[in-house]
Amino acid sequence: MSNSWTEQVIEGVNARLASFFADKHAQAKRLTPRAIELVEAVSEFTMRGGKRMRALAIYAGYRSVSQNPSDAGFEAVINLGASIELLQSYLLMQDDWMDGDDERRGGPATHAAFSRRFGDAKLGASLAILASDIAAGFAFELLHDTKFPARTAAAAHVAFTDMHFEVVCGQQLDLLGHEPVSLMHHLKTGSYTVRGPVRLGALIGDADEAQLAALERFGRPLGIAFQLRDDVLGTFGDSRATGKPAGHDLREGKNTALIAEARTLLSPQDRERLDQAFGRRDASAEAIANAVEVLDRSGARAHVEARLAAQLAEAREALHPSPLVNEGIALLHELMDRIALRDR
Amino acid sequence: MSNSWTEQVIEGVNARLASFFADKHAQAKRLTPRAIELVEAVSEFTMRGGKRMRALAIYAGYRSVSQNPSDAGFEAVINLGASIELLQSYLLMQDDWMDGDDERRGGPATHAAFSRRFGDAKLGASLAILASDIAAGFAFELLHDTKFPARTAAAAHVAFTDMHFEVVCGQQLDLLGHEPVSLMHHLKTGSYTVRGPVRLGALIGDADEAQLAALERFGRPLGIAFQLRDDVLGTFGDSRATGKPAGHDLREGKNTALIAEARTLLSPQDRERLDQAFGRRDASAEAIANAVEVLDRSGARAHVEARLAAQLAEAREALHPSPLVNEGIALLHELMDRIALRDR
Repeated sequence: MSNSWTEQVIEGVNARLASFFADKHAQAKRLTPRAIELVEAVSEFTMRGGKRMRALAIYAGYRSVSQNPSDAGFEAVINLGASIELLQSYLLMQDDWMDGDDERRGGPATHAAFSRRFGDAKLGASLAILASDIAAGFAFELLHDTKFPARTAAAAHVAFTDMHFEVVCGQQLDLLGHEPVSLMHHLKTGSYTVRGPVRLGALIGDADEAQLAALERFGRPLGIAFQLRDDVLGTFGDSRATGKPAGHDLREGKNTALIAEARTLLSPQDRERLDQAFGRRDASAEAIANAVEVLDRSGARAHVEARLAAQLAEAREALHPSPLVNEGIALLHELMDRIALRDR
Repeated sequence: MSNSWTEQVIEGVNARLASFFADKHAQAKRLTPRAIELVEAVSEFTMRGGKRMRALAIYAGYRSVSQNPSDAGFEAVINLGASIELLQSYLLMQDDWMDGDDERRGGPATHAAFSRRFGDAKLGASLAILASDIAAGFAFELLHDTKFPARTAAAAHVAFTDMHFEVVCGQQLDLLGHEPVSLMHHLKTGSYTVRGPVRLGALIGDADEAQLAALERFGRPLGIAFQLRDDVLGTFGDSRATGKPAGHDLREGKNTALIAEARTLLSPQDRERLDQAFGRRDASAEAIANAVEVLDRSGARAHVEARLAAQLAEAREALHPSPLVNEGIALLHELMDRIALRDR
């Protein structure tokens, strides 16, 4: 499946999610028909976003240590891939409420949809938190839906709960405006975007310590690169591709790498133009356009792109030479391109 | 350990929690010192409440199917007991925020403590949700901290995630004011207070289907009895014992069994006296006292106590005759008394 491995993983994860949600729909119906609403909130949100980047990372991690990939291994990748998508849904649902973001993946955020439906913002927020709880429970359920050898199951469980701990701590740092932002990103995004999934995949493939260490050296800079790309897209990206309104990060006053660079580069005049959009939810389209132009012209964007390239080089270096399997290394390179070159 | 089994379980769970929190404190410190705050919020909240009723239910469930209880079995009970206490912390932290309750277990609710500390209600709520996330992750981590045979681990995992699904759906029904309240209570409280823990304990002891069915027949009415006792305590209980302010349930306008009974029993005049306190957070102490008196005099309290006694009788009946082990049956009776006769 050399050429279309990404399609196979994406289709596998989507099919697994669909059958899982059908089971949960039936289970909810047996408990109380109202509960179907929560399951549907999770299912709709999860199926709305389709990159499945983390599942691809799990597969690449698995193949990077497996000389003889098996059907059972592929099934485990798919279950863990579905699990991590549900983890992602849970985190994003909460994140959107915490940040007051009403749009996500080209549709309403969960708290916004519930608030509108019941005409009550607090009730909407509470129901979104319950939907996130359901998603988290589903993630843990799917994590153990594979018949692993006991040692593999235990290792995957620890990797998963450690990853969960890191990402929640990262979200805390984000809420508290922690400086420097790099640690926050390392925990909040890097943990479960690249490092965690690649490690989970490698554990399925029964990786040894040297292999896990090589993947850690690979995953850490790639996670930072992912976040830097996110920052660039959040300001310069096409809103139709990102699923978020244009100027979103600026209006939110997000503490991005781009803003941190700009602070060291801007003239007082340009800084003022930036501040007319930064952190102002009611900023005009013109103010946003001005701020975007300032960030581009100042060199902040170019600096961030240069850092991104340096992180990618570091990730690439971690693969040569390495104790990893050649076929898997090719997939890790593909993963790297997807993360670095994406437009959403 | 016939006489002091409850003390041994309570001490075992508290010691396990203490050592677990110490580990997590160290892990947080390695990630970022700020994260210690979240771990401490969970640890302080969890150690503040000490009934450990659910851990006792796990142990009673275990003994009710084990002819030869083992040290390994006891260790599993303690790990699962600690896990379910963390599940409880996670649920209560969210519940308090959703209900706007600022007090719990004789101290501030988590969102209230964070709000006060940062002078920001939304940030306080967000940090409380993150603390609840941490607690949930810890609960899942401890669930797999025991070296079970694979079959036992899988069964315990499914029982735990099913229980989690039910309780979140029950909370949804509560938020939406679902009628009748009995289904809501069955899901929201019964699921993880008696039925779930007793089942978990029995699974540790490798129960057969007949034993699990008997425990289900026992746990279901006892879970309802627990909730009815809670309703009575929430209105008539001593605030020093319950850890909640007097008249709390009335002020909150909680949809309790007591209120449902009262609605069918009260004269228009008494209904009016009740309504001067019900659902009014600013109700005077006098209005609360009047409403409490009305609920007592109307017979609503007596009706609820009678229903409670009927549920206990049903639970008792499920134990005779039964496929359960005699020593364990004695513990289940003790558990029943604790649940029915408690004053907090």
